[in-house]
Order: sequence, then C-alpha cells, then structure tokens
Amino acid sequence: MSKRGEDRREKILDVAQASILQKGFSATSIEEILEKAHITKGGFFYHFPGKSELARALVERYLRDDMVFFDTLERRARELSDDPLQQMLLFINLLAEAMENLEDVHPGCLVASFTYESQLLDEDIKALIATGTLQWREKFAGMLARIEESHRANLEVDHDEVADMLSATIEGGIILSRVMADKALLVQQLKQYRNYIKLMYTPAAGVLA
Amino acid sequence: MSKRGEDRREKILDVAQASILQKGFSATSIEEILEKAHITKGGFFYHFPGKSELARALVERYLRDDMVFFDTLERRARELSDDPLQQMLLFINLLAEAMENLEDVHPGCLVASFTYESQLLDEDIKALIATGTLQWREKFAGMLARIEESHRANLEVDHDEVADMLSATIEGGIILSRVMADKALLVQQLKQYRNYIKLMYTPAAGVLA
Repeated sequence: MSKRGEDRREKILDVAQASILQKGFSATSIEEILEKAHITKGGFFYHFPGKSELARALVERYLRDDMVFFDTLERRARELSDDPLQQMLLFINLLAEAMENLEDVHPGCLVASFTYESQLLDEDIKALIATGTLQWREKFAGMLARIEESHRANLEVDHDEVADMLSATIEGGIILSRVMADKALLVQQLKQYRNYIKLMYTPAAGVLA
Repeated sequence: MSKRGEDRREKILDVAQASILQKGFSATSIEEILEKAHITKGGFFYHFPGKSELARALVERYLRDDMVFFDTLERRARELSDDPLQQMLLFINLLAEAMENLEDVHPGCLVASFTYESQLLDEDIKALIATGTLQWREKFAGMLARIEESHRANLEVDHDEVADMLSATIEGGIILSRVMADKALLVQQLKQYRNYIKLMYTPAAGVLA
C-alpha cells in the first residue's frame, strides 16, 4: 500500500475507534466515519469491505499496539534493574505513570467495548480477542515466573491468575475512571496491584499459612 | 401499579437487560423487546415513554439489586464471624461462591456496558451510575475501616482505593470471563483480591517499609 493509502487507512481506524469507545460499535456508522475521516465511500470500501472487516482490523491493530507498549515498558524496566521483582514493580510504575500522563481520562479498551457488544461480532473476531488476552496473560505470567527464581512468595502464587489480575485491574480501572470521569482512579488501581505484588514477595512478610 | 402491571414492567426490564449485555444499548430495539417480552407497543410506552427512560429504570433496578445482594452477603458474613477481617474475607468468599454457582458465564455488568456507550446516555443516567459506583465504594470502604479497629495493616491502606479495587476486580473479572467464555476467571480474580486483603492484615507479615 502507498504511504498515502496507509495514512488514510490509519485515519479511518483512528476515527472509528474513538467513536466506538464513546458510543459503541453498533451506533458508529460508516457515514459518520467517512465524514470525520474526510474520506469517500469508495475510499473506505477500498480498505474495508464492510463493518466486520473494520472491526477485525481495529482489534488486530489494538492488540498489536498494546503488546508493543507493554514490551517497551518491560524493556525499560529491565534496563533499570537486574532484579525480576524490581522489574515487575518498575513495569507497573511505568504503566501507572503512562496512565497518569494521559491528557484526559483513559479513552477505553477496545476489548472491553467489543465484549459488551459481542453478539454483533463474528466468531473469528471474538477468537482474536481471546488470543490477545491470553498473550497478555503469557507476558505477565512470564514476568512473575522469573521473580520466583530468586524470591520466595508469601503464599502460593498462581502465575496465570495473578497475571490475569493485571489485565482485570486495567479493565476495571478504566471503567471506574470513566464512570467517575477521573483518570486518577486507573492509576490508583495499578498502584494497588503493585502493593499486592510487593506484599506477595516481601521477605519480612514471612510465610502465610 | 397492579401486580400484573409490575410483572409486565419487570419482564420488559429483564428482556432489555439481557439483550443490552449481549449486543449493547444501541442495537437493542424496542421492537425486539416487544417481541421477546410478548407485549404491545402501547404496553411498553405505558411503562416507558422511550429508550432513555428504559435505560434509567434499568440502571436504577441494577444498582438497587446489586446493593441488596451485597447487603445480604455482608449480613451473612457478620452472622458467621465477629471479627471484621474474617467478615471481609467471608464476604469475598460468599461473593466468589455466588459467581461460581452461576449456571453460565456472568451475564455482564450494566454499569460497564453503559460506560462503553456513554455518549448515547443522558447526563442524569451517567450521574446515577457514578452515584451507584460511589455507594459500592462506601460500603466496601466501611468494611475495611472496621478491620483496622482491631487489626494492623502491613502497609498504608487507602480504604477508598482498596474498596474501589473490589469493584474493579468484579468489572475486570467479568470482562475476562466473557472474553475467555469461562466463568472460573471471575471467581479466580475474587480469590486474588481476597489474597491481597489477607496479606495486608496478616500479623506474620510484619510492617513493610
């Protein structure tokens, strides 16, 4: 695709995503996207045969960008510390910092948005979302597993469940932030999750029955 | 309202809510509700002048039922133990048990669903949702405050933030459960939250720096 074609495709995706996160997939019309992206019907259909293909492209881009974001934060955390526990705590701090630096309340998560309109989506898009969510689990669980090479946990840690808790914290924190129109709530929730990890591996805490 | 009128109103709300949680508010048409609730257009408009009033009634009922549910679990936890920490841990266990006993994956939270279509809602409905979410915070924060009358925490506990974390855990856990089509994920997340509370107040854990 030409640079101009790519830019146009990205613009369509940007406009569609912003609208979907505010009023949902169903209420976001192609007409509205054309208008906001300053694109013709032909231009739209050249990139996306229909709304279903648009949804798929949005999910693919969203999951890819999220993973790049998480990878970048993890790399930075590894640069800053050699200790896997500190790396995890730094990772959460960097994530919280990024959420704090957002201009406004977090715009929302496409995974959550689509999940609440799941009946409108094709099965392959739902499968894509599930795969993406499993990749988050895998990434975070890997970070937790490395901690236990040099730290002893104060209770039995199910890496997958604790990894999922970071995803759940992000999803739940975004919802609370939006409901209260306060970006601080997402940041606070990430810090609570960080406290949990800290309590889990602090040697002073001793072994729990 | 007559018993029959009330039953009919409840039926409309049940049918509308089930549909909204699966495909969103926008894609849920009045026509579809009439058909599924076996009700005439006149019957519907007798109860709700339009979709906006329907949305408001749904939120009111949802928040009220949720609070009744939480109150019932808290009362039961108080019957089972005199100790506020045990009451909190029991409360979370009872909640997890209720989620485990659901026949299927959790049907979804109306607060989350509406939050992802918030641009379609009137300001007063959004305010209602924010008030309801603050009531959850108040309830859980009260339970946490009582713990500290007789237990010392291992780190500084912001009651509001830790209270919000239970709401975030429920919201995030529901999303993960739905994405993976596995009701166990919500239960697991509640147990992780329970672990956090446990680590926070276990005396063996000592005071964290």
